[in-house]
Amino acid sequence: MRIAEIGGEFALINRLMRRVDGDPSVIKGIGDDCAVLAYTAERHLVVTTDMMVENSHFSRGWFSPFQVGKKLMEVNVSDIVAMGGVPRYAFISIALTRDTEVEYMDELYRGIYASGDKHGVHLIGGDTTHGREIVLNLALIGDVEKDLLCLRSDARPGDLICVTGTLGGNQAGLELLLAGKGGHSIEFLEPQCRLAGEGQIIARHANAMIDVSDGLGSEVRHICEESGVGARIDAGTIPISAEVREAGRTVGKDPIDFALSGGEDFELVFTLPPDRIDALRTEFTDFTIVGDILPRQEGLFLNKEGKRIDICRGYDHFAG
Amino acid sequence: MRIAEIGGEFALINRLMRRVDGDPSVIKGIGDDCAVLAYTAERHLVVTTDMMVENSHFSRGWFSPFQVGKKLMEVNVSDIVAMGGVPRYAFISIALTRDTEVEYMDELYRGIYASGDKHGVHLIGGDTTHGREIVLNLALIGDVEKDLLCLRSDARPGDLICVTGTLGGNQAGLELLLAGKGGHSIEFLEPQCRLAGEGQIIARHANAMIDVSDGLGSEVRHICEESGVGARIDAGTIPISAEVREAGRTVGKDPIDFALSGGEDFELVFTLPPDRIDALRTEFTDFTIVGDILPRQEGLFLNKEGKRIDICRGYDHFAG
Repeated sequence: MRIAEIGGEFALINRLMRRVDGDPSVIKGIGDDCAVLAYTAERHLVVTTDMMVENSHFSRGWFSPFQVGKKLMEVNVSDIVAMGGVPRYAFISIALTRDTEVEYMDELYRGIYASGDKHGVHLIGGDTTHGREIVLNLALIGDVEKDLLCLRSDARPGDLICVTGTLGGNQAGLELLLAGKGGHSIEFLEPQCRLAGEGQIIARHANAMIDVSDGLGSEVRHICEESGVGARIDAGTIPISAEVREAGRTVGKDPIDFALSGGEDFELVFTLPPDRIDALRTEFTDFTIVGDILPRQEGLFLNKEGKRIDICRGYDHFAG
Repeated sequence: MRIAEIGGEFALINRLMRRVDGDPSVIKGIGDDCAVLAYTAERHLVVTTDMMVENSHFSRGWFSPFQVGKKLMEVNVSDIVAMGGVPRYAFISIALTRDTEVEYMDELYRGIYASGDKHGVHLIGGDTTHGREIVLNLALIGDVEKDLLCLRSDARPGDLICVTGTLGGNQAGLELLLAGKGGHSIEFLEPQCRLAGEGQIIARHANAMIDVSDGLGSEVRHICEESGVGARIDAGTIPISAEVREAGRTVGKDPIDFALSGGEDFELVFTLPPDRIDALRTEFTDFTIVGDILPRQEGLFLNKEGKRIDICRGYDHFAG
């Protein structure tokens, strides 16, 4: 039976993963950016892992090894920042191809260290082996103050939905490259995740948080599923830079689509009660309100020029 | 520059990895079976990761998905057992090929759970993606009583070198399969690592310990390098089963070579002072003395029928 027949990768994971019951040290298993484990009196451990495969996640033609290494670290750090946590220790596994040169590896690790140093991460273990294409896996351990732990599953009806920075840059860069237009490629090739300090500030005010790795539509859907709520995203409020709008014009596509379904912007999506907005603004201002959390029965939809577009099954599936 | 030109994978890792200085919570970084991190007043965290690539570590023709899944867990558990630790939490990343069937994944996970349940490991996170061949990565977190932590780096001249069980079964099975002889394949296809309880008993007596993932010669070499000592392995004492001797005759090779350079037997190699042997034997008896730790200047060598065979640069490089 093909994986598509049972509903794709998320359905496969649901089929394969067993719930962990009866172990009080597992605070949170599957179903968030990180697993959360009991640690000290004040802190939990948070653990995440991400795999990047040549030709699926990057090509050697488009990405320099420095950029690949940097992205490998950023994608994992972003998961820990989105819990309100601080990244600490990284373990990297690499399958090399027979023709991989030492200079490629030097540059790959220069990228890993550049990002790791920025975020205070030590690389302390790993595994090196061979394959037909380059495969990279990074496992990252961090910790989080118990009071700051911010899950996907605690959004409440009435919360505002906010997003940091601007969205769609990653997809815009990809679209330009696909169209042979070059330009704007740095944001695509070197996405930067938010700093732990920013995630911690947001976590002090937010009910739920997630990072943008599959587009705003997908991330809000995860929050809704895990929290048992609905949501409205107001298309007109989604923060999109002038460069991304220009890229949309160049390739003849709606930049809102880049934000909703383009992945790996590594911004943070969070929900919080309206009366916490002013307090958050005294500490952090680089965010935009893009919608509201609703009761579950109201569903998950995009409000685009007054039209309701259902996105319950993900943005890919809707005709918008 | 090709990786072989700088001396292969170990040289590459040495070139790429930086020492972690100034972080007191890193008890041990690179250079052992696991990284060791500060945890509670009584225990350290131990963390390991291993990657398995289709066509390099397994083929779908020879290994059932159940066996692949089981081996993925055993190879990682073995690293934690070899520190005197207890495995706890696993994070699995998988790159699937487009043609991977749901039934293959069901069986793969049945193998992962079969081994995980035996060792008390919970699978609580991971990542699923796509590639041109199946790639599996497992990151495993465990803990170890501080007093039991057993590194590669604490062997002392005068210690005896011991090994659990028998060696060479994994390589014997591979050689038979390569020769088209089948048979004996279960030990090859389903290597079993030692239990945490066995590792803990040994750790109470041993100075140094490592698991057999690249053959006895390679493991003793790691102990010598990390401990700054030499060693003599007595070829005649290496424990080899009747089945492995028979396999050697069948394929026309010396079964001692299977033990010295054949990987993934997942037995434990440990060193301890001679006066601790009797105390260990009151708790655990399934081991054999195979040599002695010597002062560094005496080098690392195999004593085979009275002949000294230098194995300082690994067993692959010597002419024995």
